[in-house]
Amino acid sequence: MSAQQRPEPAPVDQTTQVDEAASAELADLENRWRRAVADLDNLRKRYARELERERAAERARVAARFLPVVDNLDRALAHAGGDPGAIVEGVRAVREEALAALTGLGFPRYEEVGVPFDPNRHEAVRVVESDEAPAGTVVQVLRPGYGRDDHWLRPAAVAVATAPRRE
Amino acid sequence: MSAQQRPEPAPVDQTTQVDEAASAELADLENRWRRAVADLDNLRKRYARELERERAAERARVAARFLPVVDNLDRALAHAGGDPGAIVEGVRAVREEALAALTGLGFPRYEEVGVPFDPNRHEAVRVVESDEAPAGTVVQVLRPGYGRDDHWLRPAAVAVATAPRRE
Repeated sequence: MSAQQRPEPAPVDQTTQVDEAASAELADLENRWRRAVADLDNLRKRYARELERERAAERARVAARFLPVVDNLDRALAHAGGDPGAIVEGVRAVREEALAALTGLGFPRYEEVGVPFDPNRHEAVRVVESDEAPAGTVVQVLRPGYGRDDHWLRPAAVAVATAPRRE
Repeated sequence: MSAQQRPEPAPVDQTTQVDEAASAELADLENRWRRAVADLDNLRKRYARELERERAAERARVAARFLPVVDNLDRALAHAGGDPGAIVEGVRAVREEALAALTGLGFPRYEEVGVPFDPNRHEAVRVVESDEAPAGTVVQVLRPGYGRDDHWLRPAAVAVATAPRRE
């Protein structure tokens, strides 16, 4: 049978040497390709784990910033029984601390009045007729905003001036 | 110049066909390898961006949980002028809110007494001689802890019972 016929051994010549060099190069390249594909796969898995770990670490970091706020609320309330008036100063300090934490996280308090309405920073919840303030000016902050122009956690809820109606 | 000499055209024979097949395979493999390496590089860059974006998103998410706390501190203080006593109830509510936020983030308050000292949950800051509590029992929580056994934001600072010295 032809299947059992052994092929003639190739003569050791230029051709064989070229083939051997090519197949060595091929094997090397295939190795490199397989390694790159395996690296890709490992990287994907590693990043998925890392992402969750980083998220948890950030959550803990931010939550920890608010522990002194809670501790000081505890403290203010512990003293409240004896002197309810004394609590006010304590709570003011707690608020300052909470604001400092938010500022440190990149979200400072924003409650400017007298500036033109800006839909990024402001949410208009009331319109007020005014002779004094130019139309479109923020005349009152009903709830402060937190953040900066690159990232607003919450815009400020404001009252905006409009020209008085002449009747 | 030799650079301008054209190489002799290779004779069309068996050797050339083998070479052509091998070099096509080589080119294909090299392509795949280059693509895998490029993917690897892109993945690295993409994940670096994503990591920072996810971190910022988590920071904003957690910080936003504390905005109601600050709003209610504002509210409590706004009413404080009229009736300093009324502030106590408001502040108690603020504290409950802050605790709910921490619990929601996976860090519930922990302040159990009467349990055996556990170095994961407790930090012993005081030792108290006691006839009633078995040695090694937590008899007082001086500052509550926050977290769970898989992640303690802060252990509880506690007083631990020890056997009274017999003299």
